[in-house]
Amino acid sequence: MSQTPLRPKVIAFDVFGTVVDWHGSIQKEVETLQPGIDGAAFANAWRAGYKPAMAEVSSGQQAWTKIDDLHRKILDRILPEFNLSLNEAQRQHLNLVWHRLSAWPDAVAGLTRLKSAFTIVTLSNGNLGLLANMAKQAGLPWDLILSAEVFRHYKPDPEAYLGVADVFDVQPQEVMLVATHEDDLSAAQRCGLQTAYVHRAQEYGHAQHKPVGDLSRFNWEARDFMQLADQLLRAS
Amino acid sequence: MSQTPLRPKVIAFDVFGTVVDWHGSIQKEVETLQPGIDGAAFANAWRAGYKPAMAEVSSGQQAWTKIDDLHRKILDRILPEFNLSLNEAQRQHLNLVWHRLSAWPDAVAGLTRLKSAFTIVTLSNGNLGLLANMAKQAGLPWDLILSAEVFRHYKPDPEAYLGVADVFDVQPQEVMLVATHEDDLSAAQRCGLQTAYVHRAQEYGHAQHKPVGDLSRFNWEARDFMQLADQLLRAS
Repeated sequence: MSQTPLRPKVIAFDVFGTVVDWHGSIQKEVETLQPGIDGAAFANAWRAGYKPAMAEVSSGQQAWTKIDDLHRKILDRILPEFNLSLNEAQRQHLNLVWHRLSAWPDAVAGLTRLKSAFTIVTLSNGNLGLLANMAKQAGLPWDLILSAEVFRHYKPDPEAYLGVADVFDVQPQEVMLVATHEDDLSAAQRCGLQTAYVHRAQEYGHAQHKPVGDLSRFNWEARDFMQLADQLLRAS
Repeated sequence: MSQTPLRPKVIAFDVFGTVVDWHGSIQKEVETLQPGIDGAAFANAWRAGYKPAMAEVSSGQQAWTKIDDLHRKILDRILPEFNLSLNEAQRQHLNLVWHRLSAWPDAVAGLTRLKSAFTIVTLSNGNLGLLANMAKQAGLPWDLILSAEVFRHYKPDPEAYLGVADVFDVQPQEVMLVATHEDDLSAAQRCGLQTAYVHRAQEYGHAQHKPVGDLSRFNWEARDFMQLADQLLRAS
C-alpha cells in the first residue's frame, strides 16, 4: 500500500463490476431470452456504450439523464446488431436487467462484515431506483445508497467523490472508495479519498482479459470483499 | 378510508415524529446533560424553530441549507433561553442528537413486515447523513433513504413528493406517504399520492395535547406501524 492511511469513517463502493456481476447476469438473461445468441458479446456491447453516453452528459452535450434512459438508448441500438427482435414491453423488461444483477458470491458476506465497523454506501453512476431495486433483490446491506443522481454529476467528476464526504460532514481522506476500476480510483484519489482496488478478473467474462496496471498507488488491494474486510478490520 | 386505493408499490415515511420519537430522545439527552432543566420544553422549543427556518429556504430567502445547519442555528438561539451553557464541542455533539433519535417501539418490527411486500423509503426533510446515521443506530431497514436534500426542495413543496415517484419510475398514485402530520399528508394528496395517518399522540410529550382533525380524507388510519402492516398486507 502506498501510505499508512487514516482509518476511514465511510466506505463507498462502486457497484457495476465491483459489487455485482453485470456481465454474467446479462449474458444469462439474454441467452435465456434467445438461445443461441452470443450473450457474452451482447453484455459487453451494451456496457461499452455506457461511458460514451455518460460523457455526453458530463460534457453538457446532453442534459442530465438517468442511467436507465442511457441503457435504453444503447439497447435500442445494439438489438439489431445481434438480430434480436423485441417488442416495446420486452425491451422495457430487458432494460431493467440492470436492476436485477446478481452480487458476486463474496459481496453480501463481505459487506455485512464491513458494515459492523464502518458506514458502507454506494457511489455509483446507476440511478437511485436502480440501486434500490438491486439492493432489495440481492440483499445488499447498504447504510446509504448514493448515486451520481444525488450529485447531478457522473463519476469521474470530482463532485461525485467529494459529495460523499459532504453528505457525512467528514474530510475526503475519511472516505474510502472501493472499486475494480483504476480510472475510478485514480479520480477519487485526486479528490483526496482513500482507495482500495478489488480484483474482479471475470468482470468482462471468461473470454476477455482484464488488464491490471500498477496497483501500488492505491491504499489497499484485495482479491474480494472478504479479504478486504480482513485487511480493514485488522487495521482498525 | 376515503376511496378504494390502488395497491402502492412504494411506501414513503415521514421520519421525525412518525418513525422516531424526537421529543423523548431530546428530552432524555438534555436532562442527562443538565439535571433540573425542563427537557420537554427544550425539545419543543428546538423543534418549533424548524418550520420557520425551512420556510426561509423554501421562499428563497435563504440558499439551500441542510437540516443539521438549521438545527444548529436554532440551538444557538435557545441555549441562553434555557440557561444552558455549552462550549463548541458540546454544542456540536448535542446538535447531532437528531442523528441518535430512538425509534417508536413498533417501528422496526412494523417496517420489517411492510418491507416484505413493498419498497419502503424515507421522505424526510432531514439530510441524508442524518437519516443514514439514524437508520444505522436504530436499525431501520429502509430500502432507500430519500430526503429533501436529494430533491433540493423541502416538504411540503410538490417536488419532494413527486420526486419519490420519479425515482422509482411509477405514477404518483403508486406511492403512499405515511405520516403523523396532516399538513404533510394533505400536500402529498394534492400531488396524487396515497396517504396513511399514523397516530403518535405523544409526539410533543405527555404534557402537550396533539390535536387531530378529520382523518377520513386519508386512505388509511392506524394507531402504529404494526396495525398499518395488518391493514396493508391484508389488502394486498
